[in-house]
Amino acid sequence: MRYGVIGMGAIGGFYGAKLAHAGKEVHFLSHSDYQYVKERGLQVDSCDGSFHLPHVNAYGAASDMPKCDVVLIGLKTVNNRLLPELLPPLLKEDTLVVLIQNGIGVEEDVQKMFPEVQLAAGLAFICSAKTEPGKVNHQCYGYINIGNYSCKQQEKIDEVVNDFRQAGVDANEVEYLEARWKKAVWNMPFNGMTVALNTQTDILLQHPSTLQLIKDQMMEVIEAAQACGVKNIDETFAEKMIYNTVHMTPYSPSMKLDFEFKRPMEIDYLYTRPIEEARKAGYRMKKLEMLEAELRFLDLRQRTSE
Amino acid sequence: MRYGVIGMGAIGGFYGAKLAHAGKEVHFLSHSDYQYVKERGLQVDSCDGSFHLPHVNAYGAASDMPKCDVVLIGLKTVNNRLLPELLPPLLKEDTLVVLIQNGIGVEEDVQKMFPEVQLAAGLAFICSAKTEPGKVNHQCYGYINIGNYSCKQQEKIDEVVNDFRQAGVDANEVEYLEARWKKAVWNMPFNGMTVALNTQTDILLQHPSTLQLIKDQMMEVIEAAQACGVKNIDETFAEKMIYNTVHMTPYSPSMKLDFEFKRPMEIDYLYTRPIEEARKAGYRMKKLEMLEAELRFLDLRQRTSE
Repeated sequence: MRYGVIGMGAIGGFYGAKLAHAGKEVHFLSHSDYQYVKERGLQVDSCDGSFHLPHVNAYGAASDMPKCDVVLIGLKTVNNRLLPELLPPLLKEDTLVVLIQNGIGVEEDVQKMFPEVQLAAGLAFICSAKTEPGKVNHQCYGYINIGNYSCKQQEKIDEVVNDFRQAGVDANEVEYLEARWKKAVWNMPFNGMTVALNTQTDILLQHPSTLQLIKDQMMEVIEAAQACGVKNIDETFAEKMIYNTVHMTPYSPSMKLDFEFKRPMEIDYLYTRPIEEARKAGYRMKKLEMLEAELRFLDLRQRTSE
Repeated sequence: MRYGVIGMGAIGGFYGAKLAHAGKEVHFLSHSDYQYVKERGLQVDSCDGSFHLPHVNAYGAASDMPKCDVVLIGLKTVNNRLLPELLPPLLKEDTLVVLIQNGIGVEEDVQKMFPEVQLAAGLAFICSAKTEPGKVNHQCYGYINIGNYSCKQQEKIDEVVNDFRQAGVDANEVEYLEARWKKAVWNMPFNGMTVALNTQTDILLQHPSTLQLIKDQMMEVIEAAQACGVKNIDETFAEKMIYNTVHMTPYSPSMKLDFEFKRPMEIDYLYTRPIEEARKAGYRMKKLEMLEAELRFLDLRQRTSE
């Protein structure tokens, strides 16, 4: 199978490099450092063992790339508006596109852009960062869940999962909608609250008032998920997420990093869409509505003060 | 009538000085600048006409003060724990104590400290600040509403209202509980949100996301008030408050000033108590619960980082 990777950042760079390192054919599209990587290769500093790829198929334009069996999307969702330009050159009749992205509603919107394309959700549980040109820093975790959204070829999903496993990445197939909402249980409270209060995951859990608030927000996501038809989720899942986070290395979620580096935040798919989906299903996520409003305010202030 | 004023800050200093300027007998208790005021008098720089009081009855200890017919409390509620020490020397059998303070539940708690004392709520609508020793800066507004809480002498309430009017202060008697909740409609959104987002009233109303959030929070207060038995309040009151604020000079509410000057914030009576009262009456103020949690976090961080 031939893999294409759109976006050679913390996500696309890591998972693409792992596949290439295992001998898979991988072609990377990179806006910023394809030239650097083409000349000097890609370095992955990883808690699971660092490695260097001396020869990387890196491209600066999608039109130069070959058609692929599987395309991994490693863009931030704020850049999905570029997909109508970036994705078509890589597509053939049965290409599977895996959206390794955050949030709720991503697949629906991409499917509207490409009604015929087979889509899957990729849910990455990883702490990684693109620290400099040609270098990905993988701090911890790294497993990926794949949820079938509109792929008619089950064997292709299986093959992607197997390829990841062969590449040393813990991969599993999961139910798409349940997986998206379960990830939102962690993402919605921690991404926004670390921005709104300019803090870190561990400090939020050390203060009784914000610990309770995080729990309340997680319960809002769980009740929203239930309203949207996800059955296999309840309060114990929130407790597990909080327990895991207390025992995690303190870190800044992706939205916190985006805000710190004055990049646009993924408010649309991390907040607005799940809030809308829940509201359509008759449930109001009131505390997360407030968080969304605060984030919109902070985002606009940051962009207009420059 | 002899007036006592506990707290010679932006509130007690202003209203006490207005009464004294009109020839009433007023005795001030001041922690910080009684000596300065005793020697050099009290200056009021006011949009309604500035004036100077050369001779002021200022005291540094309550035990030196005479018994009073009316005591105005101009302390921040965070200092109400001092009342059992400060108030008794001023009390005689029929003293009326007017709590010119913010929040919900203040009268209940002070009544518990002094079960026999006659209490009234004083609701000040004023922009004023104590800028330096012996000087109060009154920027705009200034009217005061008096709500009877446990005063058995209606004529005493009337007399206080009349004395204020004679002193050039627009004063009116109002229904206590309704007035407290109506003031909370403005106070709860604007005090906390200007702190949480480090901004001003006008900027909150310029952003569509925070304008909607302020409206939602005002509706939470209105629905809480209704649940607590206040009938004469509905959505039009929120619209009027927003309209008035849009046309107000942008300014920092008292909690914002407290936070900026690293003073403790009045979270208990401005947030915790109304949230509790509403919850007891079966209504959850969810966005304001979240704001309370954020304020507790910010308050604790500020106090522990020093």
